[in-house]
Amino acid sequence: MNHIENLTRYIANFVDELSKSGLTDVVISPGSRSTPLAMTFAEHPEIKEWIVLDERSAAYFGLGLAKQTKRPVALVCSSGTAAANYFPAIVEAHQSRVPLLALTADRPHELRDVGAPQAIDQIKLFGDYVKSFHEMALPESIPSMLQYARTRAARAANEALTGNAGPVHLNFPFREPLIPDFSLENLWGEPLQEPYTIWHEGQKRLSDSFMKQFAAKLSSFKKGVIVCGPQVKEELAEAVSLLAESFGLPIIADPLSQVRTGEHATNNIIEGYDAFLRNEKVRNALKPDYILRFGAMPVSKAYLFYVKDHIDVNQYVVEHHEGYREPVGNPTEFILADSVSFCSDLLEEAPTIIAEDNEWLAQWKQMNEVVKKHIAKVADGSLTEGEAVKTLVEIIPDNSSLYVGNSMAIRDVDTFLMTSKKKLTLLANRGANGIDGMVSSGVGAAASGQPVTLLLGDLSFYHDMNGLLTAKHYNLNITILVVNNNGGGIFSFLPQASNEKHFEALFGTPLHIEFQKAIDMYGGSYYNPTTAMELKEALQSSYKEKGLSVVEVKTDRTDNFHWHKKLWSGIEHEILKTVME
Amino acid sequence: MNHIENLTRYIANFVDELSKSGLTDVVISPGSRSTPLAMTFAEHPEIKEWIVLDERSAAYFGLGLAKQTKRPVALVCSSGTAAANYFPAIVEAHQSRVPLLALTADRPHELRDVGAPQAIDQIKLFGDYVKSFHEMALPESIPSMLQYARTRAARAANEALTGNAGPVHLNFPFREPLIPDFSLENLWGEPLQEPYTIWHEGQKRLSDSFMKQFAAKLSSFKKGVIVCGPQVKEELAEAVSLLAESFGLPIIADPLSQVRTGEHATNNIIEGYDAFLRNEKVRNALKPDYILRFGAMPVSKAYLFYVKDHIDVNQYVVEHHEGYREPVGNPTEFILADSVSFCSDLLEEAPTIIAEDNEWLAQWKQMNEVVKKHIAKVADGSLTEGEAVKTLVEIIPDNSSLYVGNSMAIRDVDTFLMTSKKKLTLLANRGANGIDGMVSSGVGAAASGQPVTLLLGDLSFYHDMNGLLTAKHYNLNITILVVNNNGGGIFSFLPQASNEKHFEALFGTPLHIEFQKAIDMYGGSYYNPTTAMELKEALQSSYKEKGLSVVEVKTDRTDNFHWHKKLWSGIEHEILKTVME
Repeated sequence: MNHIENLTRYIANFVDELSKSGLTDVVISPGSRSTPLAMTFAEHPEIKEWIVLDERSAAYFGLGLAKQTKRPVALVCSSGTAAANYFPAIVEAHQSRVPLLALTADRPHELRDVGAPQAIDQIKLFGDYVKSFHEMALPESIPSMLQYARTRAARAANEALTGNAGPVHLNFPFREPLIPDFSLENLWGEPLQEPYTIWHEGQKRLSDSFMKQFAAKLSSFKKGVIVCGPQVKEELAEAVSLLAESFGLPIIADPLSQVRTGEHATNNIIEGYDAFLRNEKVRNALKPDYILRFGAMPVSKAYLFYVKDHIDVNQYVVEHHEGYREPVGNPTEFILADSVSFCSDLLEEAPTIIAEDNEWLAQWKQMNEVVKKHIAKVADGSLTEGEAVKTLVEIIPDNSSLYVGNSMAIRDVDTFLMTSKKKLTLLANRGANGIDGMVSSGVGAAASGQPVTLLLGDLSFYHDMNGLLTAKHYNLNITILVVNNNGGGIFSFLPQASNEKHFEALFGTPLHIEFQKAIDMYGGSYYNPTTAMELKEALQSSYKEKGLSVVEVKTDRTDNFHWHKKLWSGIEHEILKTVME
Repeated sequence: MNHIENLTRYIANFVDELSKSGLTDVVISPGSRSTPLAMTFAEHPEIKEWIVLDERSAAYFGLGLAKQTKRPVALVCSSGTAAANYFPAIVEAHQSRVPLLALTADRPHELRDVGAPQAIDQIKLFGDYVKSFHEMALPESIPSMLQYARTRAARAANEALTGNAGPVHLNFPFREPLIPDFSLENLWGEPLQEPYTIWHEGQKRLSDSFMKQFAAKLSSFKKGVIVCGPQVKEELAEAVSLLAESFGLPIIADPLSQVRTGEHATNNIIEGYDAFLRNEKVRNALKPDYILRFGAMPVSKAYLFYVKDHIDVNQYVVEHHEGYREPVGNPTEFILADSVSFCSDLLEEAPTIIAEDNEWLAQWKQMNEVVKKHIAKVADGSLTEGEAVKTLVEIIPDNSSLYVGNSMAIRDVDTFLMTSKKKLTLLANRGANGIDGMVSSGVGAAASGQPVTLLLGDLSFYHDMNGLLTAKHYNLNITILVVNNNGGGIFSFLPQASNEKHFEALFGTPLHIEFQKAIDMYGGSYYNPTTAMELKEALQSSYKEKGLSVVEVKTDRTDNFHWHKKLWSGIEHEILKTVME
């Protein structure tokens, strides 16, 4: 068979099998060497292609879309530094367990490492940051090689998704000419063909005898704490809240745990822990007998100190598959089991219901109430950063996603996101906590069709303004709330802030740019509210609009620092006065 | 000694030794974990620090500065995806042999791979793309560890620069607290201390007997061609032009060879080869006995075909140190020797001067003249892409640098940059030929104080608009000529262009954005000339201005394709008529 037919059938079978394996979206960055993949994806009737020019943004767009849909998303780029631009998002996908398929085009072997243009060594380009790497064979269309193409497609899509999800990298050597011939008969294989390979993945469950013993052990303690860190399993909220009620336990619920909001019972959920665990006396008073954690470590540094302070406490960390996420260094029992099944199995073995309103739980609830009341009344009309985030989480629509930037944004959401019946999906790039790729991540999530609000600071916004092009290009519905304190606001909270000589240049790093001009360039609606009421109105009208809306709230870094300090000390004062006396 | 003193002395000795090893510039991206490095660099009296927020841009800024100065430039960033954002520029630095030091801050060992925030595996993060990687020890200030810090600094700076230059990566584990104490006595070591280690690098020279034989061999041939591909050694121009005159040889001089312009003799320099070697008849008529190449493969695809057509020709490729840059696959003799010494050694052994105006050389010169005359007269007043580049290379100031983007920009410079006495430094990212990082590369080159003009297309400009922030921040003098054909102009020249269904979406990729708004945001002067005369005036006034100037020339992709086609066929017609008949 000739070159074009080899190329066409090989890639068509590959792409078709990806589709049959559940892949619905591909993010393509333009290039010549990647023509066979790009054109075949565009030709395939079941796969939606997204063209994103900046490969760094493209990979983050794919990441956001995959986070939102929990399906693998493919990335296609040409050879050279194009692929290297995927690296930050690949790292984040690895760290936060997101299924991505990086499909990189490459020169064929005879044009590698000989000074040919745009040829770099792409073998294992992403090192240990991918779950697997495979160098694809040159295109051939004999039956065994079409089978190979199909099995590799199915493997890649399923490897990315099974166990701890993560990125997979396939590198494709292509010889010229590069243009497939879509007029070939049976281009996609036989009509109505079943998937070539199918994956059935079981869940880890511990034995009945273990669960019985474990339940008995927990029941022997008076003071337990359930912790829900960042995690994405929706069903956990219901399961863990039943468990908490049955055992009479408080749930420390990170904003990214998906547990703070929803239709499940939220009686035992403690949202205010970050405020009251800042105080050492409180941490000592709340010393638990055990901690049972689902998901990653919470964002809260106060919680980190709480664990650090109690090295002699039984700590149980539940992981669905594997992984070591215990940064404190305390002794730990790792429970490798599906979190939802584990909750229901534990509930079944619970010998008695301990107490719905035991003293231990009451203490947590009481402190939490103090925090909630204090936060509810801090509004002083002016549009502080805290007020902006508080307003946002209050009026964000039901059945929508909130994509949260790192540094200040996630910490403010931790403070201000209270339990409610709203169905919110909380997304963030907390694998490596970078400020890069945030706009594209949010826009990628919005590409799923789900309404998305992206909350981030000015440095994150600047870092990935290129991501706005895709929102414009596809007229995606996204509201971006930029809290612009002209620099790195979080550094004001760190010891570096006391160094007058170097602080502003090295850490404060003001941008001094007017984002409105960029937003105008990308065809977005722009709002610049200066009061909480104006912000509310701006957000509400942005939600009614189609396309890109950017709401910029301009604040002051120093004011923000003092505002937060005052908030924490006010809460501390009230806690010490009303609860700890 | 206490933690702070250990930290301070260790990093101060490291930074001071970098300075003593010739490092003058560091590019710092803000972060917390990198505080010891960032603050110590900022404190050091001899090193200039540049704060660049987007780490991808930061690394390209360092690349451009290192390309311009030929000195190593250090990059400092925090842990996490910050470091991953360096990857594209690290790849380019590896491919195009540019000395960079990536100094990445990391969590200490006890906080790695345990789910601690912003902690990723940074060991060998850049794989084989760095010349060496070293995981630094934790800071200590006993004498042996200060010696270690100094030797590692000196090694890194010198490794980056010796042999084929390239990037080096050092990863620094830091424990909190992170703030050094600059009030310590003898912070930078003893006053007037000599460099701790000094490197003396020799040059490769072949033996006299080899050179005698080689000169005799070349003299036995009638038809030789000297090729100067992309290379950065300034002295080559003089040496190779003397050699060419002595042996009566044409010099095929790539625009990036640094040989086209300057005070040296340019009689034998052929700039028009890309035009006339497009024709197969011409390639056959110009079949050489041997090719002697310095530098990398030229940009010209016509030259590639010329080599491909003549597999039976003696091909000699000169490399200063090592490397295999022969993408055609023809038989080759590699000469590992310093190019300038090699030229003068060869000249010394040249038995006789063959002929200044032999028939072989005359034939090349004649064709070249046809091309030059044709190009000189194509101006039709309208501002085509060709006209824009022609105007730019005509009026670009003496003693300045031209940083050239990939795709169309470098090809148009290949066509329109003619020999002249101007001292121009030609820079480009031709290691991997990416369209990423171009703005930052140009701005980095301008940070050296050398006047820089950056020529690039709209996609390259868009890809790294973030790079403009640094030009604004430091008020750097740079003129950027953006040829905006609203998309990927080079694809119109490829076979993909004939695919009506997918071409515009996958390859044409129009941006449809008004750059003027971004330029306004970054405080640049903006020009939008619509005639060649207006362009000339715009460039001239941009050169008189301080700071950032962007000149945007709006063109049409299809017109540009036809314009170039017409140019090539016009030249071909004249060559066939006047020279080949």
